[in-house]
Formats: sequence, C-alpha cells, structure tokens
Amino acid sequence: MSQIKNTQVLFMENPQGYPEPNKSIVHDNSHTIDPDTIPLDGGFLLKTLVVSIDPYIRTLMRFVYKRGEVIFNYGVAVVIRTEHSGVKVGDHVYGLLPFQKYSIIPHVSQIGSFRILKNEEKLPWSAYVGMVGMPGQTAYSGWREYANLQKGDVVYVSSAAGPIGSFVVHLAKEAGCKVIASAGSEAKLKFLRDIGVDVVFNYKTEDMTEVLKKEGPINLYWDNVGGETLDKAFACAAQGATFILCGMISTWNEAPPVMNNMGYIALNQLNVHGFTITYLLPKYEKEFYDVVPNWIASGKIKCLEEKRNGLEHASQAVYDVQVGNHTGKCVLVVSEGP
Amino acid sequence: MSQIKNTQVLFMENPQGYPEPNKSIVHDNSHTIDPDTIPLDGGFLLKTLVVSIDPYIRTLMRFVYKRGEVIFNYGVAVVIRTEHSGVKVGDHVYGLLPFQKYSIIPHVSQIGSFRILKNEEKLPWSAYVGMVGMPGQTAYSGWREYANLQKGDVVYVSSAAGPIGSFVVHLAKEAGCKVIASAGSEAKLKFLRDIGVDVVFNYKTEDMTEVLKKEGPINLYWDNVGGETLDKAFACAAQGATFILCGMISTWNEAPPVMNNMGYIALNQLNVHGFTITYLLPKYEKEFYDVVPNWIASGKIKCLEEKRNGLEHASQAVYDVQVGNHTGKCVLVVSEGP
Repeated sequence: MSQIKNTQVLFMENPQGYPEPNKSIVHDNSHTIDPDTIPLDGGFLLKTLVVSIDPYIRTLMRFVYKRGEVIFNYGVAVVIRTEHSGVKVGDHVYGLLPFQKYSIIPHVSQIGSFRILKNEEKLPWSAYVGMVGMPGQTAYSGWREYANLQKGDVVYVSSAAGPIGSFVVHLAKEAGCKVIASAGSEAKLKFLRDIGVDVVFNYKTEDMTEVLKKEGPINLYWDNVGGETLDKAFACAAQGATFILCGMISTWNEAPPVMNNMGYIALNQLNVHGFTITYLLPKYEKEFYDVVPNWIASGKIKCLEEKRNGLEHASQAVYDVQVGNHTGKCVLVVSEGP
Repeated sequence: MSQIKNTQVLFMENPQGYPEPNKSIVHDNSHTIDPDTIPLDGGFLLKTLVVSIDPYIRTLMRFVYKRGEVIFNYGVAVVIRTEHSGVKVGDHVYGLLPFQKYSIIPHVSQIGSFRILKNEEKLPWSAYVGMVGMPGQTAYSGWREYANLQKGDVVYVSSAAGPIGSFVVHLAKEAGCKVIASAGSEAKLKFLRDIGVDVVFNYKTEDMTEVLKKEGPINLYWDNVGGETLDKAFACAAQGATFILCGMISTWNEAPPVMNNMGYIALNQLNVHGFTITYLLPKYEKEFYDVVPNWIASGKIKCLEEKRNGLEHASQAVYDVQVGNHTGKCVLVVSEGP
C-alpha cells in the first residue's frame, strides 16, 4: 500500500449553545498514512471499525478536548500490524480511540487502556460501544451500586429509548418494578412498549408531572437529562426515593435551569447519587463482561441502534445526539470490519 | 383564678416572599381562659414555657398551617392540672405546642406525642428546643445516618452559628475533620472561632467559591440554606463527596434559584441526602437523649441563643429568623417556668 488518506475529526471550540455541525467539530482530510510502512516503535497499528457518538461528548468538549486536536471516544478497532507482545494481528480492542481511520498506539504502557474483545458470542462490533460498552456499563454499574428496590416499586426512566435508558428499563422490569418511561418520538415509544414498559409517554406532548402523579409516586428516578425534567421529578418522588444521575444533556447546551423543587430533596427524604462510569467501572467490570454479552446474544436485553457511515459525518452525528435527532444508540462506522 | 387572657398566634397567609411581621402571622388577644375551672375531659392542662422559632416554620406556612388557626411548633410546657394518669402536675413535657399560654390536651391518645423531660442535668428549658430539641436531633441524626468521613476530611457548614450548624461543627471536629464554616456577622464568626472551626468566613462579604477552592475541595457539605450556596458548593466538592440537605431557607422566600452546577453531581460523583427529622428520629431518638443532655451540661457542645419574650413578638421573630436578623437559636419565652 502507498500513502492513503487518514481522515481526522478535529475539535475547534466549545460553543455557548449546541455544537453546530462543521463548526465546533470539523473533519480534516489533509493527513495521509502508509499503513504498511509507518514505523511502530514497539507499538501497534489499529484500524478503527466503529466509534461511539454519546451525549457526554458535550462534556468532553467543555472540559477535555483541546482546540485543533483529534477528538476521541470509545470505539472498537482491529490490530493490523504489531510489534507489541500484548496483541496480535486480528485482535479486536475496545477503548478510547482517536477519531481517525488508522491509529498507532506507540507506547507499551497504553495496552492497559484497551480491552481485547474475545466476542465468543459473535455480537456485531457496534454492540461493544452500546449495551456492552460504556452506556451499558453505566446502566449496569449505577443500578448495582445505587438502586435498592422492592418488588412493585415505581421506577421512572427519562430518555428511555437510549442505550442507558433501555438497559435500565430491563433491569427494573427484572426486579419486578412498575416502569414509567419517556421518550420524544412514536418510534421510541413503540420500542419501549415492546420491551415491556408499563407506562410510556412522550415528554414533548404530555405533561410529565400529571403522568408521574397519576402513576407514581416514584421510588427511583434514573435521570439521563437533568434540568426541568429532574426538577419536576423531585416533586413527584415517594418518601425516601432514590435518584440516579448519570448525565445532564439538557444542561450542557441550554441556559442553566431554574430549579423550583430543590426543597423536595429534604421534604421527600431523597437520596441523589451522581456518577460517571470511570468512577464505578473497576468495581463492576468483571461481572459486567461475564454476563452482559450473553444477555445480548440471547435477546434478553436489546436497544435501538442508528448507524452512520464515515468520519466526515461525525460532526453532524454529535450535534444530532445533542438535539435528539437520532433513534437509539448512535454508532459511527469508520471501516467495515474483518 | 378567674378568666384571664390567653393570647394566641394565628396564621393568616402564606406570602409570596418573606412573611411580613403582623401580616402573615398575627397575635390575637380576644380569647380568655380560667385555668382553675376549665373542664379537662380526662386530659391535662399545660402552661407553655418556651416555644421554638425555627427556619422551617416557613415550610409549615406553605404546607401545613391553616388560615385563622393557631400556629404550633416545638416547645416545652409544664402540667398545671391533670385528669390523665400519664402525667402529673409539675411534669415538663416537650412536643408540638400551639402558640398560646394555656393549652388543654384533651385526648388520652395525645400523650404519646409529648416527651416527659426528666432533666436530671438541670438544663435551662430553652435547651430542649435547641441543641436538645429538634435542631439538635436534626444535626445528630443526619450526621449519624449520612456522614461517613475519614480523619482529615474537609467539612463545610453553612449557616454554621445556628443550632444545627454549630452542632454539626462539633461533630465534625470530634471526627478529626478540617471544618470550614460560614455565617453573616462578626459575632457569629467569633463564636465559630471559639468552638474550634478551622476556617471561618462571612458569606456576605467573602467569595465562597474562592474560600472553598483554596481550603477544599470539600468531602462533606452540610447545607442549611440551599439556593446559590448549594449550587456553588457542587462545583467545589471532592470526588465522591457527601451533601446533607436539611433545609433550604433561601428557597422559601426568594425566587427559585438558577442552578448552574447541577452537572457536578454526576461529574464529582456526589451523594446528596435530604431529610427532615421526622423521618430519621425514630432510629436515633433513644441514643440522642441518652448522650446529648450530658454533652450540653458538661459544656462539650454549645450554641448561641437569642431569647425573646412574649407571644406578641412571635410574628416578628418568625420574620427575623427568615432574614437572619437573629444570632443563634431563637427561643420565644411564653411564661417564666416553675
């Protein structure tokens, strides 16, 4: 092979509001690479198959990404050359990957940040950035750590058709809870009915407080959005209810919310737990990979997925996930995998 | 004795903002009573000695008090006549008392809602509505239930010169923590220095975020105010910090706050626990009364106290406690006690 294009996705700015496509994040075709000859310096060369487009990329834009540098997120790649004894050609790895087709992982120490995927269940690789990846880990670990429910308790999940939300719905149903779930389109609501949600509603057209007062009070709220939704939920909670907060998409792009109901945290004796997966993963990682791939393979749990093709669509995909112009887990296919 | 005045304090309205004196709550001199002859119907007659003026009275105004009816709160009274076998003349009782000098407790069942105070430590009765009353119970129970600290951890207490705050300060110092405390006057700050607070600051004149960033990050925030203070604290917390919320005086009288930092609940892996004492008391009541009166008697813990005289000043006192025009625990003396 000779020099070929190695398209990259670059970070430009953390905007005030929503990350306008091709402005906050852009793609750049100026780099080339010769995968056959580029020196590996004791490392290995990855060809990226899929990367994940997650809501929390907005937080990385705020706190982590650096202007002009390649953005990164969880993805699956295949080893195509190696000088490293820890991996062999054909191995599939999961971890934080730069948004570019080919990546050299030069440092011996960095192998530790990748997980070699055995994939004995023959799942599509995209599953490993969805329910078997960071979103699934978030749902699984947060539930194991904080949910403490009795059969018949009422659970409310917002943004429930996403990979975290639908994973939580499954866990709540398995625990014998009554599940209320909200989403923003008929396709999403249909999916939620199909996976056994007891009460579904469209948050864009129905009055959340009315639904929760009628079907609640809620013993657990799994919050994927924050803002006004979280504020209203405080007032609809049962005494001693648990709130689990793992992301606040509504607060990343819009003006900070006026919170009317913070006082209910004390009045309703609420326990509010926030977390990011980095914090909880070490405790639950082993059992997660022991059980979840099989749950997917057997069809016990499932989620909606929306695939997009090509790094040149990363910027639009990041935006669409912020505004909700997508259905289910958004995956960017970078290369067709072997 | 013949008919004498039995001044009452009545609830008139739950205002939009602060409860203007002699408007939201008024006193009324039209009722009379003859303590010697009024029928007891198997109950007992109490003469009220002290009642407590607490911040949470604002919540009772919002949710509990009824227009035109006598307000109530925790107080200490002495039994002056009885037809009830559960109490004898001269017994002192603690419980929710109507704001009036003489009260008949007619129903046999109601004795259960009062606690007979032995007071072997000979504390002033006002202590039983302060550090040995509801505020002390709040501090003690909330700390026992939710605080889970290591020696050297950093604790921040707002409204720290009040009876809850100064109790928490003592518990935090005893646990070997570094304590940061804020209050709004030099007298209060001096008291806080005297009881061993490591870092004191005046929230009216100093930048809270600057102080907490310099002296923190904080591992525990004991919140007595809510609103902007709570919002700023979210961003100054250590990973995995605990927040204990037992009242939100700032949110009861002012417009609902804009919360900029709710996202830090997830980013900083916070555990936020709200409670009211009714919820936790059954679990901790026995040990509280076993140990705390002795702590006060021995001088191990102490708080500032501000006494006011006469039910006709109840309305002003309720207002002053909302705006902070008081220093320490506010107690209304209704009768001089035997």
